[in-house]
Amino acid sequence: MAAGLPEPEPLRALIDALRGLPGVGVRTARRMAYHLLQHDPQGALRLGDALRDAVGGLRHCERCNSFSQTPVCATCENPERDASVLCVVETPADQNMIEASHGYQGLYYVLMGRLAPLEGVGPDQVRFAPLRERVRDGRVREVILATNFTAEGETTAYYLAEMLRECGVKVTRLARGVPSGSELEYVDAGTIAWALMERRPN
Amino acid sequence: MAAGLPEPEPLRALIDALRGLPGVGVRTARRMAYHLLQHDPQGALRLGDALRDAVGGLRHCERCNSFSQTPVCATCENPERDASVLCVVETPADQNMIEASHGYQGLYYVLMGRLAPLEGVGPDQVRFAPLRERVRDGRVREVILATNFTAEGETTAYYLAEMLRECGVKVTRLARGVPSGSELEYVDAGTIAWALMERRPN
Repeated sequence: MAAGLPEPEPLRALIDALRGLPGVGVRTARRMAYHLLQHDPQGALRLGDALRDAVGGLRHCERCNSFSQTPVCATCENPERDASVLCVVETPADQNMIEASHGYQGLYYVLMGRLAPLEGVGPDQVRFAPLRERVRDGRVREVILATNFTAEGETTAYYLAEMLRECGVKVTRLARGVPSGSELEYVDAGTIAWALMERRPN
Repeated sequence: MAAGLPEPEPLRALIDALRGLPGVGVRTARRMAYHLLQHDPQGALRLGDALRDAVGGLRHCERCNSFSQTPVCATCENPERDASVLCVVETPADQNMIEASHGYQGLYYVLMGRLAPLEGVGPDQVRFAPLRERVRDGRVREVILATNFTAEGETTAYYLAEMLRECGVKVTRLARGVPSGSELEYVDAGTIAWALMERRPN
């Protein structure tokens, strides 16, 4: 942004703080600041309170590593869930999507990240140690790797498979294939190749 | 977003508050919340403080209507600026860009919005009255309309031109034409048409 007029200090500080949000550059931050100050000061105050409450009130669940208000989250405490299966996901959003499929009754471990060697995120930056301990507790029989099917997610899955095989549990990966409801004409070639390789008797 | 797991209340409240930002939907809000909580809790607290400080510390300058910490902003107080010319812009960002051109020494009036009949934003929603009073103070000789060259900006400029002509001042509009440094081959036809219509002796 070219120099222009000096901005009042609180406005400059707000634009600067908004730029800390992922995917927000200086123009977007400026637009957000103007919008909040001009049209939604109540929303701005509510966001301020929500940020403070969330940072102060949330911790990581001791068992699944997801965000929780209590030491152990409601999902991990639920006696109706199958403690012998553990699904490893990258983020709470992924956990939500799996839960929304209504196809899973086991427990979760949320990595809160993934290996990304190109960004300098190695095994030391992602909390793998609690997962290994969890898997060694004797109750877990199968670990389902549900990291994303991106380069980083696949790298993470590969690393975890190596690490967990030593623990003597069954390690599986979500199936790759043609998405439900899709027409082959519009599915990318890589997906078709995987679906062919992993074809199954019908 | 499908149902999924119940989110801890502070996280849900934070995602909800982030959705109030312009252009932020539920997925982006979720990503922002995870990022702040996982990787940048200090940034989250800083953003919370900045929001409170900005809402509490900023007001509208009594003369130009832009954001200011003081009743009258530094630009309006500056005795070296030419008080006989007034440039009307939609937002402080536009004001910044004009200032950055180093081509203007007059004062500003910031509408903090524009007429947008399709969105239900009419003359009552944009603060035109203080501008009319300002123009009637006897010092202003020329008003430069520098609203955007969009449908809404043009509508606003047309409305303002009608309104201000009654006040007996000269009303001008930023020149339309070919952008500096551009090749005609890549300029859109509408711009070329304007540049032809408003051609000038060289």
